[in-house]
Amino acid sequence: MNEPGFVFEHVTVIGVGLIGGSFARALKKHGLTRRITGCGRQVAELEKAVELGVIDDFDTRPAQAVAGAELIMICVPLGAFQSVFEAIRDHVAEDAIISDVGSAKGSVVEAAEAVWQNLPAGLVPGHPIAGTEKSGVEHSFAELYQDRCLILTPLQSSAPWAVEKLTRVWEAVGSNVVCMSTEHHDEVLGATSHLPHMLAFALVDSLARMHEHSEIFRFAAGGFRDFTRIASSDPVMWRDICVANHKAIAGLLERFQQELAELTTDIRNRDGEALEAIFKRAKLARDTHVIG
Amino acid sequence: MNEPGFVFEHVTVIGVGLIGGSFARALKKHGLTRRITGCGRQVAELEKAVELGVIDDFDTRPAQAVAGAELIMICVPLGAFQSVFEAIRDHVAEDAIISDVGSAKGSVVEAAEAVWQNLPAGLVPGHPIAGTEKSGVEHSFAELYQDRCLILTPLQSSAPWAVEKLTRVWEAVGSNVVCMSTEHHDEVLGATSHLPHMLAFALVDSLARMHEHSEIFRFAAGGFRDFTRIASSDPVMWRDICVANHKAIAGLLERFQQELAELTTDIRNRDGEALEAIFKRAKLARDTHVIG
Repeated sequence: MNEPGFVFEHVTVIGVGLIGGSFARALKKHGLTRRITGCGRQVAELEKAVELGVIDDFDTRPAQAVAGAELIMICVPLGAFQSVFEAIRDHVAEDAIISDVGSAKGSVVEAAEAVWQNLPAGLVPGHPIAGTEKSGVEHSFAELYQDRCLILTPLQSSAPWAVEKLTRVWEAVGSNVVCMSTEHHDEVLGATSHLPHMLAFALVDSLARMHEHSEIFRFAAGGFRDFTRIASSDPVMWRDICVANHKAIAGLLERFQQELAELTTDIRNRDGEALEAIFKRAKLARDTHVIG
Repeated sequence: MNEPGFVFEHVTVIGVGLIGGSFARALKKHGLTRRITGCGRQVAELEKAVELGVIDDFDTRPAQAVAGAELIMICVPLGAFQSVFEAIRDHVAEDAIISDVGSAKGSVVEAAEAVWQNLPAGLVPGHPIAGTEKSGVEHSFAELYQDRCLILTPLQSSAPWAVEKLTRVWEAVGSNVVCMSTEHHDEVLGATSHLPHMLAFALVDSLARMHEHSEIFRFAAGGFRDFTRIASSDPVMWRDICVANHKAIAGLLERFQQELAELTTDIRNRDGEALEAIFKRAKLARDTHVIG
């Protein structure tokens, strides 16, 4: 962990669930801010967050919640970004950093461009490669971002000071910060996160629609359990990710269908050599690049 | 665990790896046999199995190994069944039970029919729904089948006494025994095991073939790790399963491609309602039917 060399007076987290709550906890744990204001739509959830010591105070009105904040971290579903940007536009301090944790970045930029004529210099979109299938502030924990990748996708409008300070914030909570373009992020995450989620959802859904599905699931072993764990993820969040990153995901799905069509042909032809080559390449790549 | 009410004098396990070794260990642990003979092609592996106490003795020649055995458990790759059947055909005792642990059952029956004009009354194919990504007798353990499903696919030629005794063997080592037809087994396992393996292999292979694949894998999070774990499975075993169960797997893959094509259309159309419905159905089915 690097020494950040700064402490914020006031940070606002909009959307205090698992991700936002864990970010707030991490800031507190590392002494990076004197005060955290939470913002959300459900008072009961925000009260719970105060009780848990995740935030210090809250306001359900984004405009009021961001007043005076030096860092505004937006942790709402992708479908809610434009309305959040609209609500805070005229209330953000000029030198405030505005960032987020959205799983797709192109749609966040589009939402910002729809709201601001000139994007704020402090706007630097981000995405921590971390999370669990659980949701809600009660599952948040300060170590969620420890030793995880954090991708920043700075825009042409992003000021270097904002990128640097945000980098130091995430490094201070233990993340490995990497910068890349918006488009590249959406392709890479499409391949490693969005596509696997689509396959898991589609597989479980197709089995669930089979006639004797409860009998079928009965014979599912440990491999199936691991493979389909991500199909327990939040449907609304994934709806939003699909809509937000529709171009990249649809392209990847089409390419994958081509891959499956070739594999199906090899299986129909009982082409053991071709099949073994595919499985060997996959096993080697998995064993080389993925731990655990 | 039920009391089996019998003890074998002599059991032969052909193929003493993770699966065969675990079966042998389980028989010994529960005191179900006085002697276990191992059979395989690699003397070093068989010697290791004797040293580990998994088997009592061994013979690399199947004909000799099965002489006098009351239970012959075949745990070789699916591609090797026909040659094993040929080798033991004239050396099996008339009242011996012949079973196996193959992941596909239609091809086992085909191999038997190619070798025997009249199938032996003691032949009752089986398949324990258990295993790990590891292989080799050094990873075998007696509890592998504890609380797991064991599917038997009795044939018209199978004698009731053989089905009953085999059921009691598996129940004695802790398995829940279910009987079904050969065809039904291959459909159900195709859906819950073979299809997910194909998707995991195909996904990892397609990412591995991308230009910047080591960078792409770098941003894979925990969900990807779980999802692709089965892509570390043995390529040769899976080649054999695909060739053996080619009809069911190819049919399932084609149906799944149709499912993916529909999903892709929903994503291209940004049809949030349709997407949310799919994801909700999948999450509900996963949370209802699969634990963990």
